Amino acid sequence: MAAHDPRVRQGKRFEMRWNGHRSYDVVATHDLLRRAPGELSAAIGARRVLSVTTPTVDALHGRALQRHLRDAGVDADHFVVQLGEAHKTMESVLALCGHAQRAGLGRRDLLLAFGGGVCCDVVGLAASLTRRGLPYICVPTTLLAQVDAAIGLKTGVNFGGRKNYLGSFVPPEAVFVDIGFLRTLPADDLRRGTAEILKIALVRDEELFSLLTERGPELLESHFASPARVADLVIHRSIALMLDELSRNPYEDRGYERLVDFGHTFSPAIEETSLHRVLHGDAVAIDIAVSCMIAIELGLLPEYEWHRILAAYRALGLPLTSVYCTADVLGRGVEAAVAHRGGRLNLVVPTTVGCATFVPDAASIDRGLLERAADRLALEATARPRATVAAT
Amino acid sequence: MAAHDPRVRQGKRFEMRWNGHRSYDVVATHDLLRRAPGELSAAIGARRVLSVTTPTVDALHGRALQRHLRDAGVDADHFVVQLGEAHKTMESVLALCGHAQRAGLGRRDLLLAFGGGVCCDVVGLAASLTRRGLPYICVPTTLLAQVDAAIGLKTGVNFGGRKNYLGSFVPPEAVFVDIGFLRTLPADDLRRGTAEILKIALVRDEELFSLLTERGPELLESHFASPARVADLVIHRSIALMLDELSRNPYEDRGYERLVDFGHTFSPAIEETSLHRVLHGDAVAIDIAVSCMIAIELGLLPEYEWHRILAAYRALGLPLTSVYCTADVLGRGVEAAVAHRGGRLNLVVPTTVGCATFVPDAASIDRGLLERAADRLALEATARPRATVAAT
Repeated sequence: MAAHDPRVRQGKRFEMRWNGHRSYDVVATHDLLRRAPGELSAAIGARRVLSVTTPTVDALHGRALQRHLRDAGVDADHFVVQLGEAHKTMESVLALCGHAQRAGLGRRDLLLAFGGGVCCDVVGLAASLTRRGLPYICVPTTLLAQVDAAIGLKTGVNFGGRKNYLGSFVPPEAVFVDIGFLRTLPADDLRRGTAEILKIALVRDEELFSLLTERGPELLESHFASPARVADLVIHRSIALMLDELSRNPYEDRGYERLVDFGHTFSPAIEETSLHRVLHGDAVAIDIAVSCMIAIELGLLPEYEWHRILAAYRALGLPLTSVYCTADVLGRGVEAAVAHRGGRLNLVVPTTVGCATFVPDAASIDRGLLERAADRLALEATARPRATVAAT
Repeated sequence: MAAHDPRVRQGKRFEMRWNGHRSYDVVATHDLLRRAPGELSAAIGARRVLSVTTPTVDALHGRALQRHLRDAGVDADHFVVQLGEAHKTMESVLALCGHAQRAGLGRRDLLLAFGGGVCCDVVGLAASLTRRGLPYICVPTTLLAQVDAAIGLKTGVNFGGRKNYLGSFVPPEAVFVDIGFLRTLPADDLRRGTAEILKIALVRDEELFSLLTERGPELLESHFASPARVADLVIHRSIALMLDELSRNPYEDRGYERLVDFGHTFSPAIEETSLHRVLHGDAVAIDIAVSCMIAIELGLLPEYEWHRILAAYRALGLPLTSVYCTADVLGRGVEAAVAHRGGRLNLVVPTTVGCATFVPDAASIDRGLLERAADRLALEATARPRATVAAT
């Protein structure tokens, strides 16, 4: 019985539910593509599927996916397309819709996203538009997508120089998170993914934060292969916390005080200004550092907590700042956030490791405060030269 | 007291509700733009608004709308853009999203569609994508949009030669139907709008059907100005029936047996093949005629009911066929409908005036049946030369 074999890593099934209804499952699993039929082909059932992946993921895992679906008797078509941040556009979405049309997908057939956050976002938006909404399933292959981008119900593309300006709220039908894909993930992408775990740990879970700080180097070194129990625990806890936060306000129509906006106030402006040379995970890490500085200045976060947070940055190799982290750029982040959060800033700041509060008004955050925050982070980073991120 | 003045035409407020919740109101009204502030500006409130209209509607009513909003103190921006069937594309949607972005609309601001069905469809889709969903309000100015396109929650654009292949289900915040706009509507557009009223009457309401047949010529002649009570009754009844049908299955996820699909099985193929030379209302009229022929052939509709239906076509000046109504084109309509209705045809056919049933399987509708239907309609139209529609 595989379930009792201690060498087999155990999975976990998370239910995303709201208003008392189950909406979709996020299944953390191992060896997703090894056995056929399996959980993935069971979820697809008798429907036709169009799988979408990038050249990189296709080279690594494309044959495994195709063999798995073929062995399970799934009628599948495969589409390989460049989907980096530069391709997170409506053009990519429409190319996908065109492919779905030519493949003759019916209204009950589905799209399968097999890749990182951009792939899941673009596929989700294409699915939500095609025939006014086809179902879609995500199989995220990056850490960032596994704990954040792929497990929520937001889709989005960049537009007119603005990050995620166009998109939709459309729940996936299911998400399969296989930690094994992290083995082939580039080290920098792995590191960037930990920024989203740090985000949720800092505002919700001191234990997860400590685990991340203490075991982060081993997890990064082994690509989340060992210690296996710790890797599973970190990923499972991140997913559970993220879904718990999302389920309180899945469509963001119950107010704009959202803990998961932590790290997402200044980061869009940094990404946009850098023309995406600073990638999302790094921008989130910098945003968190800026938010901590503001919290210290406003007397909301004690200085000694910042030293613990710094230790986490060091353990994970995350940047504190970049050349794009200036008072001007941070100010633009504040303005854009106010427009996007119904007229108020609602900046999330930690009050201690594991707890957070909101700075409701943009008026509390003047130009001088942003300058001091940027300056201090530049100083901290100079003391530790590796903590600034250059263009990638 | 205006409310007791018999010379003032009365409005009516319809609530679209499902799952026990009110979702949006469709307000049938008169003189919407005359008094400021009024119902429209009250619905907008303190928010900024981007109104979108076509050159034709702008020339007729643009100044009235702008003055109305200005007098009510609404912060409004106006965008005039070509929105015919040829502009029902993602390019138009993205042009609108770009305009909303440049106007700096925040997440609580809104779009206002002021025009026909294409305008409402394109604005609704742009609103649903911008910032993952801005609210929108529709003020339809054509009969077809007032009783059908603008009052539902479907948005859509044509893509890859397929009608409404891309779109979304997004309820408007409110819809204001002012019959007064019909005074300036071209006679042909008015006539085409009656096809959607005929549709709902034939499957749901014998009284409405009789009213339409008997008073149709007067209503068309007067552009629904007189008899005022009959015009209001016809429009109000159509709206109430349409909302009642939509509310049973607003997101089309509770099965594919929908009475409002009557007239919408063959019409997309006719419109696509004609490259939209046959416009929607005419295509719906032809589709209804084809469906009646099939119902007669299958023994579901008695011949004497068809004579009553023919009288309605005559009264309203609706076409029975066109050069694009061939067995080939009708067959393509069947195929596309099967793909779009989850694998079954579910063709709506009347069994008597006011009642309908479904032909579930495409297998019941063979090539010979489609040929006989097309042939008989060509004959009927030859007997009454005006009943065929040429390219417009």
